[in-house]
Amino acid sequence: MVACLYHYGVPKARMPEILRVNLTTGVCAREELPSHYAGLGGRGLTSAIVAREVDPLANPIGPRNKLVFAPGLLGGTACASSGRLSVGAKSPLTLGVKESNSGGQPGGHLARLGLLAVIIEGAGEAGKWTQLEISKSGAKLTPSLAVGLNNYAAVALLRKTFGPKVSFISIGRAGELRLAAASLAMTDMDGQPSRHAARGGLGAVMGSKWLKTIVIQPDDREKIPLAKPKVFQKAAKDFTQALMAHPVCGQGLAEFGSAAMMSLFNEMGVLPTRNFASGSFANSESLSGETLNQLTKSRGGEGRVAKGCMTGCVMRCAGVFPDQDGERVGKWPDFETMWAFGPNAEISDLDQVALYDRLCDDLGVDTIDVGGALAILMEAGVLKFGDAKGALAAVAKIAEGDPLGRIIGSGAAICGKVYGAFRVAEVKGQALPAFDPRSVKGQGVTFATNPQGADHTAGLSYASNILGLGKTVDPLAVGGQAEMSRQTQVLAAAVDALGLCAFVSFAFFENPKAVAAVVAMLNARYDWELTVKDLDLLGQKVLALETDFNRRAGLSAASDRLPEFFQDEAVGPDKTTFDVSPEELDKVLKFGDLETP
Amino acid sequence: MVACLYHYGVPKARMPEILRVNLTTGVCAREELPSHYAGLGGRGLTSAIVAREVDPLANPIGPRNKLVFAPGLLGGTACASSGRLSVGAKSPLTLGVKESNSGGQPGGHLARLGLLAVIIEGAGEAGKWTQLEISKSGAKLTPSLAVGLNNYAAVALLRKTFGPKVSFISIGRAGELRLAAASLAMTDMDGQPSRHAARGGLGAVMGSKWLKTIVIQPDDREKIPLAKPKVFQKAAKDFTQALMAHPVCGQGLAEFGSAAMMSLFNEMGVLPTRNFASGSFANSESLSGETLNQLTKSRGGEGRVAKGCMTGCVMRCAGVFPDQDGERVGKWPDFETMWAFGPNAEISDLDQVALYDRLCDDLGVDTIDVGGALAILMEAGVLKFGDAKGALAAVAKIAEGDPLGRIIGSGAAICGKVYGAFRVAEVKGQALPAFDPRSVKGQGVTFATNPQGADHTAGLSYASNILGLGKTVDPLAVGGQAEMSRQTQVLAAAVDALGLCAFVSFAFFENPKAVAAVVAMLNARYDWELTVKDLDLLGQKVLALETDFNRRAGLSAASDRLPEFFQDEAVGPDKTTFDVSPEELDKVLKFGDLETP
Repeated sequence: MVACLYHYGVPKARMPEILRVNLTTGVCAREELPSHYAGLGGRGLTSAIVAREVDPLANPIGPRNKLVFAPGLLGGTACASSGRLSVGAKSPLTLGVKESNSGGQPGGHLARLGLLAVIIEGAGEAGKWTQLEISKSGAKLTPSLAVGLNNYAAVALLRKTFGPKVSFISIGRAGELRLAAASLAMTDMDGQPSRHAARGGLGAVMGSKWLKTIVIQPDDREKIPLAKPKVFQKAAKDFTQALMAHPVCGQGLAEFGSAAMMSLFNEMGVLPTRNFASGSFANSESLSGETLNQLTKSRGGEGRVAKGCMTGCVMRCAGVFPDQDGERVGKWPDFETMWAFGPNAEISDLDQVALYDRLCDDLGVDTIDVGGALAILMEAGVLKFGDAKGALAAVAKIAEGDPLGRIIGSGAAICGKVYGAFRVAEVKGQALPAFDPRSVKGQGVTFATNPQGADHTAGLSYASNILGLGKTVDPLAVGGQAEMSRQTQVLAAAVDALGLCAFVSFAFFENPKAVAAVVAMLNARYDWELTVKDLDLLGQKVLALETDFNRRAGLSAASDRLPEFFQDEAVGPDKTTFDVSPEELDKVLKFGDLETP
Repeated sequence: MVACLYHYGVPKARMPEILRVNLTTGVCAREELPSHYAGLGGRGLTSAIVAREVDPLANPIGPRNKLVFAPGLLGGTACASSGRLSVGAKSPLTLGVKESNSGGQPGGHLARLGLLAVIIEGAGEAGKWTQLEISKSGAKLTPSLAVGLNNYAAVALLRKTFGPKVSFISIGRAGELRLAAASLAMTDMDGQPSRHAARGGLGAVMGSKWLKTIVIQPDDREKIPLAKPKVFQKAAKDFTQALMAHPVCGQGLAEFGSAAMMSLFNEMGVLPTRNFASGSFANSESLSGETLNQLTKSRGGEGRVAKGCMTGCVMRCAGVFPDQDGERVGKWPDFETMWAFGPNAEISDLDQVALYDRLCDDLGVDTIDVGGALAILMEAGVLKFGDAKGALAAVAKIAEGDPLGRIIGSGAAICGKVYGAFRVAEVKGQALPAFDPRSVKGQGVTFATNPQGADHTAGLSYASNILGLGKTVDPLAVGGQAEMSRQTQVLAAAVDALGLCAFVSFAFFENPKAVAAVVAMLNARYDWELTVKDLDLLGQKVLALETDFNRRAGLSAASDRLPEFFQDEAVGPDKTTFDVSPEELDKVLKFGDLETP
């Protein structure tokens, strides 16, 4: 282990900086933000760094790849729900650029340390697992003591050393094994590794660098410098009010978690069931947000409703799920998790879903891609639809490095390959989330065309298609989907660049004041003079950077397509297929030349 | 099972035709060769049909893919070694166009039935395995009785029904399971399923159509019509003489099999060893062609030296390998097989290699891609380098559909993904054959750029680089490789289109009379007026068709690259890396506009 050669010295208070950690040389160096990254944060910055610094042909689990962490442009401020941490790299799953962001405490902690990004380069010596410790006095690399542990045990061990105020980023066994659906865990407000940058296999990138854990010592006394503090405070208050005034952001999420609309989606017949064989699940009421709320309240104990995953969240969808004795199982399973191990696997037992969520968080794998793999194994007859215990036992094999466990931990696309499956719901190697693209076609367009692959946060097109938010487009129409999908993708990219939780988008769709407040906060934070239109340009810029990297990495328009079974197999009462034309799909992200924001 | 609806009636004697078999509808129809396919045969025809008729975005194991069989332009004639059968489809392994050709009897049999191609379309009903029977009186679909059997048992069963003169094409368990390294077996002159269209997973395409076996009743009385019979006979004689006069084609292959030059390559340090960690293997003498010859002769019994795999072969590299009691184990393992289970896995026991070859032939998998997977598992510590029995037991798991068996049967690239391996020697998803691209750089250029992925017959560039045949280019030089690689790729494509065995190329490189004789035969067969230059144009045309399909299927220049470890990890006494530039690679197959041959 090469000791860290760099100590920060006195940080420049008002200038956010980048921390570069080279695991090959052991050098950690703090540098000013280069001008070509100016104006970017969060996903904007991770994607810009990957696009500029990573060889597009690099092996994602080799030393040429880089793993980048970036809080958003509003990270660490008093802006509500602004503490998301973006993680970026070339993805082992999609072979394109990846950004996966997570709640939890590390995002805010890094921002308040004055770090706009942490870039992990090179790779440590094979077999020697490393820990990166970041504090206001510097950064250092030490040997990891958590080798072989899954996330909960690893974090428990770290807490004994570093205490409860410190936040951690870690990988479980899946990341150690460099499996393509491995996630990075981030600790939440209770110090539990329950929040994950889960999609795209970024945990495998961290594992490939022999980096097991990152320890972030917060600097609570340091405040984010603001160009115009009073303007900021006013705008932050306006933003919080706008969120609280919205029925979903202000109430639904806290009461029912992100599964708030599960029952609605099921009734509408758009909830993929039995590996996308139908659009509704007979037993969905046992998996609703209402059931989650009632069960949590009735069991008491450690169970919690209306809890944030990070400091400053006002939407508070991250409850605590208790078992029958009131003991903490894990966080409230998110909507996508409840769907992936629920309807799509024909499992209707909420306790089993909570165990699945806990198990995936512990192993450090994406619940969506692992769920996709399970549905494929069920269709192949290896597991049984509805058999939660059999499925959980199969997922647990990931920890052992058992062949079946490795297949599952590699995600749906690879599992489908190994099992010779035709019906594999994935785009660019990444499993489809919980909307049937045939009956929510705008969402299908987004899954097909987003540079991240099929992604649940890459554009909330279902809000327009089926919730009637913003510009409404009939979910079964072909026309209008491309334009609407583009708008939601642009908005999502901007939201990710700011470090905001995707769920603020619901308020953005309906309340111009929410958007205006965010623009006002950016201007007050950085002394900028942005307008609402600049947010749009920011989102476009991010998508253009990502598309450009993907093209150089070898992904072409052929990657922007849904699997053929969505075109040939009709679903739902309307017997609908995905019939948006390739020509329409190819228009979605053609922006023309853009100014650099 | 829908009965076959078509019977040929009286075949037009002089007009080769196409047989279309639609497994969705059960219709078999014979049609004249459409004009857009005129002048093509073998790989030229399979690739043209795939390029024109298959949706480039089709799922390779879905009903939109087509499986095409085509004898070469000289198939069925008295031309020496002209009976190869090309098999084409969109590949489950490379996701591009694939042609894999095989010796054995089916190629000549189909040609003499007047069939220039058999096109298998659609897919049978899931779970109902089908047999296709082709004879001069028609084609029909019947239920398969060989379901669940591997190739040797399947063929033994068929022989009981159809007798010894009939030839068979079959898939083993790997094809049934739609594994991405599954092959198609073709019966040899002894009626054994020892010859394989092995590369690119075409057995999975056959399996995905629920087609288990193809029975070809030869028409021995029918002769291939010749426009100028006497001219043809003279040219055929000249060609045979040219082959026999060449030390490799006329003697080396018959005596020592395709492993004739194993010792030479090892001495030169270009034989990948221990998963491409070095270029020579200490125990290679026990795997040489000389050892193969001596062991076979000394054991007697069913062992055979100097045997052809198909009627009319004069090079006769396909000996029979006997066990210690003289009982037939299988065919002589080919060079690539001996390397893949030998030096690259650090195994030096020829008997074990022969068992590996037999096992792969029985299961129906590519020995190169499976060998690549084994080397990865050895490097990962799952198996041990040198442990032949452990490796054979792992390969045998393919038959059971066991997760590890499925991983192995999916080939090196997928195995590498599932095991988080960085050092995976593959291009376009297909495992590298037995030349180290760092020390035989022209061969490396061919592996990188050929539209088939890394392929052992796609261009014998090593002949120029290290055997001094034709235009010699220093194997370690950077300059000149692109041009030389192009020439060998063009030649290989032409040879594949003619239905000739790749090994005739050795004579082509050195003896213009061999080439002239082939051109004379084509003209005498079809009443054409080709020159030697037209052969070159034919090869270019094939490569251009394939590249065009690949581009539409989403493969870009980014696919025409070797894995990064070949650039970063030096090998051999010269400490050489693969340093041919991307710009050079991109020039290789740029032909400009071509006339249709």
